[in-house]
Amino acid sequence: MSGNSFGRSLVVTTFGESHGPAIGVVVDGCPPGLEFDLDFVASELARRRPGSSKAVTQRKEDDLPQLRSGVFENKTTGAPIAIEIANTDARSKDYDANKNVFRPGHADYTYWQKYGLRDHRGSGRASARETACRVAAGAVAKMILKKLCKAEVRACLMQMDDIRLAISDWKLVDCNPYFAADPESIDKLEQRIEQLRRERDSCGALVYVEALAVPPGLGEPVFDRLDADLAKALMSINAAKSVEIGAGTKSVTQRGSEHGDEMKALGEFSSNNAGGILGGISTGQTITAQVAFKPTSSIAQPRHSVDTDGKPTQVTTKGRHDPCVGLRAVPVVESMAALVLADHLLRHRGQTGLIDKRFS
Amino acid sequence: MSGNSFGRSLVVTTFGESHGPAIGVVVDGCPPGLEFDLDFVASELARRRPGSSKAVTQRKEDDLPQLRSGVFENKTTGAPIAIEIANTDARSKDYDANKNVFRPGHADYTYWQKYGLRDHRGSGRASARETACRVAAGAVAKMILKKLCKAEVRACLMQMDDIRLAISDWKLVDCNPYFAADPESIDKLEQRIEQLRRERDSCGALVYVEALAVPPGLGEPVFDRLDADLAKALMSINAAKSVEIGAGTKSVTQRGSEHGDEMKALGEFSSNNAGGILGGISTGQTITAQVAFKPTSSIAQPRHSVDTDGKPTQVTTKGRHDPCVGLRAVPVVESMAALVLADHLLRHRGQTGLIDKRFS
Amino acid sequence: MSGNSFGRSLVVTTFGESHGPAIGVVVDGCPPGLEFDLDFVASELARRRPGSSKAVTQRKEDDLPQLRSGVFENKTTGAPIAIEIANTDARSKDYDANKNVFRPGHADYTYWQKYGLRDHRGSGRASARETACRVAAGAVAKMILKKLCKAEVRACLMQMDDIRLAISDWKLVDCNPYFAADPESIDKLEQRIEQLRRERDSCGALVYVEALAVPPGLGEPVFDRLDADLAKALMSINAAKSVEIGAGTKSVTQRGSEHGDEMKALGEFSSNNAGGILGGISTGQTITAQVAFKPTSSIAQPRHSVDTDGKPTQVTTKGRHDPCVGLRAVPVVESMAALVLADHLLRHRGQTGLIDKRFS
Amino acid sequence: MSGNSFGRSLVVTTFGESHGPAIGVVVDGCPPGLEFDLDFVASELARRRPGSSKAVTQRKEDDLPQLRSGVFENKTTGAPIAIEIANTDARSKDYDANKNVFRPGHADYTYWQKYGLRDHRGSGRASARETACRVAAGAVAKMILKKLCKAEVRACLMQMDDIRLAISDWKLVDCNPYFAADPESIDKLEQRIEQLRRERDSCGALVYVEALAVPPGLGEPVFDRLDADLAKALMSINAAKSVEIGAGTKSVTQRGSEHGDEMKALGEFSSNNAGGILGGISTGQTITAQVAFKPTSSIAQPRHSVDTDGKPTQVTTKGRHDPCVGLRAVPVVESMAALVLADHLLRHRGQTGLIDKRFS
Repeated sequence: MSGNSFGRSLVVTTFGESHGPAIGVVVDGCPPGLEFDLDFVASELARRRPGSSKAVTQRKEDDLPQLRSGVFENKTTGAPIAIEIANTDARSKDYDANKNVFRPGHADYTYWQKYGLRDHRGSGRASARETACRVAAGAVAKMILKKLCKAEVRACLMQMDDIRLAISDWKLVDCNPYFAADPESIDKLEQRIEQLRRERDSCGALVYVEALAVPPGLGEPVFDRLDADLAKALMSINAAKSVEIGAGTKSVTQRGSEHGDEMKALGEFSSNNAGGILGGISTGQTITAQVAFKPTSSIAQPRHSVDTDGKPTQVTTKGRHDPCVGLRAVPVVESMAALVLADHLLRHRGQTGLIDKRFS
Repeated sequence: MSGNSFGRSLVVTTFGESHGPAIGVVVDGCPPGLEFDLDFVASELARRRPGSSKAVTQRKEDDLPQLRSGVFENKTTGAPIAIEIANTDARSKDYDANKNVFRPGHADYTYWQKYGLRDHRGSGRASARETACRVAAGAVAKMILKKLCKAEVRACLMQMDDIRLAISDWKLVDCNPYFAADPESIDKLEQRIEQLRRERDSCGALVYVEALAVPPGLGEPVFDRLDADLAKALMSINAAKSVEIGAGTKSVTQRGSEHGDEMKALGEFSSNNAGGILGGISTGQTITAQVAFKPTSSIAQPRHSVDTDGKPTQVTTKGRHDPCVGLRAVPVVESMAALVLADHLLRHRGQTGLIDKRFS
Repeated sequence: MSGNSFGRSLVVTTFGESHGPAIGVVVDGCPPGLEFDLDFVASELARRRPGSSKAVTQRKEDDLPQLRSGVFENKTTGAPIAIEIANTDARSKDYDANKNVFRPGHADYTYWQKYGLRDHRGSGRASARETACRVAAGAVAKMILKKLCKAEVRACLMQMDDIRLAISDWKLVDCNPYFAADPESIDKLEQRIEQLRRERDSCGALVYVEALAVPPGLGEPVFDRLDADLAKALMSINAAKSVEIGAGTKSVTQRGSEHGDEMKALGEFSSNNAGGILGGISTGQTITAQVAFKPTSSIAQPRHSVDTDGKPTQVTTKGRHDPCVGLRAVPVVESMAALVLADHLLRHRGQTGLIDKRFS
Repeated sequence: MSGNSFGRSLVVTTFGESHGPAIGVVVDGCPPGLEFDLDFVASELARRRPGSSKAVTQRKEDDLPQLRSGVFENKTTGAPIAIEIANTDARSKDYDANKNVFRPGHADYTYWQKYGLRDHRGSGRASARETACRVAAGAVAKMILKKLCKAEVRACLMQMDDIRLAISDWKLVDCNPYFAADPESIDKLEQRIEQLRRERDSCGALVYVEALAVPPGLGEPVFDRLDADLAKALMSINAAKSVEIGAGTKSVTQRGSEHGDEMKALGEFSSNNAGGILGGISTGQTITAQVAFKPTSSIAQPRHSVDTDGKPTQVTTKGRHDPCVGLRAVPVVESMAALVLADHLLRHRGQTGLIDKRFS
């Protein structure tokens, strides 16, 4: 129950530390008979892989997914799908200096308080490296969504620091290290990253995610609402500080006569302030959400902190880090949203059995 | 699995429709031997009770909690605590007009799509009335927190429409129908509510919640992070559209050198951008969050919609409703936050066993 | 997590003590649109109702189910179905004598050890009265099985004390207080019960249960095997001491060449030593199991025990009890088996989606 | 939810097929700071390892546990403990002959019915090889029990075919391939195994398991009773057909005056028909249970069956198999019992917090 599993019908369990021999994920509950595409899993992992550009950490990892179980003759068997990813470029010694020191903004202090000890090498379990497992699982979720209801999830950068982006060209997203859908923004983003490296500082980011062609009826009333489960899934990503659905915080200053989306026909709405979810259940409209990420906590300038004895000290985080951790969060956001949708698709089919009739 | 239960170690299950004979809640996993205060449960329910002021719906309900099990000689026994609340002032006929019509901003359409039928009387299960059960459960959670670690949860109105409130006087919160902690704001809020009634419209609100004296170590890494579970709990409240933890969305434009809270001593921080949570685990600082609520969807002016045959029509929601549903959400926000903390307190004690040594 | 809920897709939660105001059950996850038959629930409850014959406890309870939610215009809505049953004939004073004494064979001592206190009135939560809630939930499960796959669950008495029964006439089962399907046995059973009353003693029983027309494919490999979940469900019934599936313990002395059921055609087997389950998954054959129940612990003769101070004493259990608690367990066994099958039916449909195609 | 996870507070997830690259297990929720002994895990695995004697399958596997995460500087960190075991001696071609045929007594037909396809190589996921993962997890559970409450779990052979064994010498158990605690029986067992090999047949077995020094108070009332969870855990082992607790099926012919264990002092009983569990909660006495295993289904003699087209055919199972699968089940029975106890120990500590005070 220690919180390393996610989902009810499609259950994902991750394991592994940043500097251990490997990290891995088990996806349980996948429908049988699905065409399994390991290359797709690899390509998804490549999207968040470190060392791929100047904009991100220079740690070099191939992140090649090794399939351990759940697939036979290229088809899912219904058994748990286990995928492992080796750690090859860990540099534990980078972290020895801070072995007994709590890095500001990191989980060092809380792990130490919770467990009485911690794996200080590269943040151990708290490392963003764990999210690679989520991306591998998310790839499976995307296969399920595509097969069962042709739904598609995609995300892009909405804002970095004070640079607001347009969402004009989705094809651009995978052609730049910023996951930007706005051609105008690339130069500005690049300059800002350079500036941050010079200033040995970091900044935050806002990520937008949407799910297209999601059938109506997904999500459970009351606690396991689709928006509630999305909020949990997205807030569980390292460095996330807020989650908004549809009009989000803007709803506060809207009037009911403005916010409430009117209907023109069954499944046809005049607007989408709801973000595709009403009463916790999908409407059939595009599901929209945005997630705010705090600036990377690991920065190469001295910060005040204390050691495990409470003695004041200064910490300068060495190691190789992203100036804006929110950038590489984009594929993770996509993956977590896909996992929530696939899970609820199976839950919905279990209780109501309607899925088949409508979608296959 | 239909999503009417919440929590892992402290499991809350609610039942009942707005216009059924009664609503109720079962709280399973409560520690034994706790002094059980039914009057406290009643007083908590009174805080969100309808009909208590001009600012809220005029539906009149006593909302007296009827204890069914789990308590013997005023002490919790460790058995499930069941509490029932009667529905006495339901006016189902108010809803007959919209029986086959989908009200904009409501769950009518999504329930109909998910289940193929719906209880149209007062929104049935989707009614905010269900939140009374959460408040009753939240009262139990508050008893647990108080007893095991003296933690306290409190919430207040932060913004209504464009009226921003100060948080200056917590004693004021339960002395005004707006749950405002800002004496200056009362008149403005009252006038805005009057205006909305005149305009037959509604507005949104922003609610602030904080948890004091929460021990460090609560929350699980990876998926069941304390902030992730708070995000789910708060987003699961009717009409919620966004959840922010600590600096929240503001983190996007912060620098790492500004956001990362420095430490002065063990458990002593120079700031609290983290909102009392690092790596998904409590730091021991005050936990802070805010929730945005959309404007009430039920407004007494004609809106475009369609009926179950897809025929365009106009809907004017009769019935008795809150001009700003976010106001009465304040005690619900408190309750959901308390449930998450109590659940994680028991989870943490189960895995690490440290609680006792430190806190009692 | 305190163990008062059961099931994954169809989740049952019970509450209430033997001598509290009422007991109740919440069934969450029921498919929507099912014809709901409250009279059927009542008739199922009547089968295990106390006071119905000389063979059972003389406590008089109407056990009329009061529906609280989940049904609208006689159809299930998909919302939690809550059913309450009042306690009307509790005689708490019967138990005052043993307030501080641990009755042999009862949960008195273990509850006291676990919780540090206990509700001594009629065993509180540990009372067989709790099983009424399981029967109410089982009735819902039977409705689901009947509707989705026409499966049927039935149970009868197989042995009482050393009286072995034939299973020759299922129509007889509900026409005698022993749930016997063997006309020859009635007199012997009646005489044995009389004898036990004279001797102020009790005896055990063996209950047989079978499920007909269960589709193949139900059950999950590895841990949530259909037989494993049946074992848990049946062993969770008060006084159960063993569970056997198919050939059960007899398998120990069988040869592989005898035990392994040969196939004659798809879904057609030459024998059924497996009890309709292979590898934890249903074969499509009749599912068979048997449950052993210990003799009633409450007997009206003095027994050695100690009080809460450890002082040796003698206990004579007053109150009204069944000479053979295994008899009234028959409808409970049926109900628990039905709940397991309905739960797995929905789980199977969720993951594979095959149900519809095959059965509706 | 596909059933490859077990436990609530201590959650075990297994993955991998008999003839895949590897099998593995993730143990989540382990208390932090435990001395982790990988050699002990290896020695436990060695106890069930194939190829270790004439009595068992001749498949040769080293079954060396590879630790992937959850341990740092020889101490558990509180993070998931992942252990992988390579498959090195799989001979898939042994199974090609039966690729489209359903072997009697096997899960071939049910997997095919459930999933529409199956991994026929060595039974894939249904292979007893999966139980190696349970033994690795059970070793972790034993470490937890030893550390938190000094409880110990041990099992031995009680009967093989019609050979009944005494339980006289526990030290003998790991010195013979039959896990017998009865010196007198070894020759008889060896001759019976030889005979079975000659006859190309197999037989069943009865395994006894007991848990010593288990604190009182473990187990939840109603559904998650300790005996119910033990029943599920033990029945989930491949080939298990019955589970008995304490006096088990014998209780049927006992009188209440005989079965109900009298008390002489707090925690001191005159007998143990209960098997150390009353009302689903541990009494502090030794917990006793026995599990019946069916004869190995894979036998080298022709049996009637059908192929995937329903065409009648004959099947002779090649491959290397145990004449009595119940023998190697002994360490698995121990492991599953240990997992249930460790899980409930943490659950109990979470809700009541009493553990520490009493046991450490």
